[in-house]
Amino acid sequence: MAWDTEGTKQKLLEAGVRQFAAHGFAGARMDAIGKEAGVNKERAYQYFGGKSGLYGAVLADQLERLLDGVEVDGAGPDAVGRYAGELFDRFRVDPAPARLLAWESLELDDPIAADGRAELCRQRAGALQKALPALNAAEAAHLLLSVVTLAAGWWTLAHLARVIVGGDVSDAARREALVRQVASLAAS
Amino acid sequence: MAWDTEGTKQKLLEAGVRQFAAHGFAGARMDAIGKEAGVNKERAYQYFGGKSGLYGAVLADQLERLLDGVEVDGAGPDAVGRYAGELFDRFRVDPAPARLLAWESLELDDPIAADGRAELCRQRAGALQKALPALNAAEAAHLLLSVVTLAAGWWTLAHLARVIVGGDVSDAARREALVRQVASLAAS
Repeated sequence: MAWDTEGTKQKLLEAGVRQFAAHGFAGARMDAIGKEAGVNKERAYQYFGGKSGLYGAVLADQLERLLDGVEVDGAGPDAVGRYAGELFDRFRVDPAPARLLAWESLELDDPIAADGRAELCRQRAGALQKALPALNAAEAAHLLLSVVTLAAGWWTLAHLARVIVGGDVSDAARREALVRQVASLAAS
Repeated sequence: MAWDTEGTKQKLLEAGVRQFAAHGFAGARMDAIGKEAGVNKERAYQYFGGKSGLYGAVLADQLERLLDGVEVDGAGPDAVGRYAGELFDRFRVDPAPARLLAWESLELDDPIAADGRAELCRQRAGALQKALPALNAAEAAHLLLSVVTLAAGWWTLAHLARVIVGGDVSDAARREALVRQVASLAAS
């Protein structure tokens, strides 16, 4: 039954997100993923070709969700600041994609699904260029990188962040600083 | 003989940096650290109280070296941009502290040696305030956090960075973009 296969895949992806985001690629255990999904772990080998395949599917799926519906709205530096704030909100609601990106860079020799992601990123950089027409393509890419690095950083470097700004600083206060900083950055 | 103890500690710290930076806290093996140091791993338990103690000592030592000699030179936004460039250079020469910071946030419940680090960070934030007198203490802390997050990000989110700006972009090109962006950010 086709719906059953899809349902099982979905359960494995969801358990995979939680285990990989918590423990990374090396630290996650397929036993634990199978157990959490309520599915025989052999299904993960059958449907995703094993741990690497499942990890790739999890990361691709999470990054697509992360970007879905977050758009640069309007033009000028403030629009880019607001875009940074919206990305921050996505990570705040669910830090899993931020953590997966950090684990990926620490643990893997090469990025997962680089070609598809590069195309998605070119589209986002193009949207930044549209909002700030003075930018060339390289400048827009560097701006996008800084925006994503800063928005994700509250989670990817969470301990550093708390040490620097103080453990009692709220997500909202950091968001406000981020939006203001990115707007200035984009105004150059 | 005191010098022997210090020499052994130093060897363990150096092997610890390499193993923890490469594999993280959970992934590093005390056997491998002892072997790489050419020292019986029992010495690590004796001198550092075990894996956690050695990890803490490695991170504290690396962060102190990272900040040592990197100062905000002069005043105004461009001075802050240059400061970001110097931090970037430190990470370029040796990405170990950047990777250790990223592993720490992903793997540990709490930051290591938070009090001493917070004091170091307050000093750096104070230097930023001196360069940009319009900032209050909280704004200076948020600026410092963004500068460190961006400078380290070329390594902590290395794969994301290459996917966004393209795999052929040099460290020098990213450094140039970073310095320019941070100077704009500081000019708000």
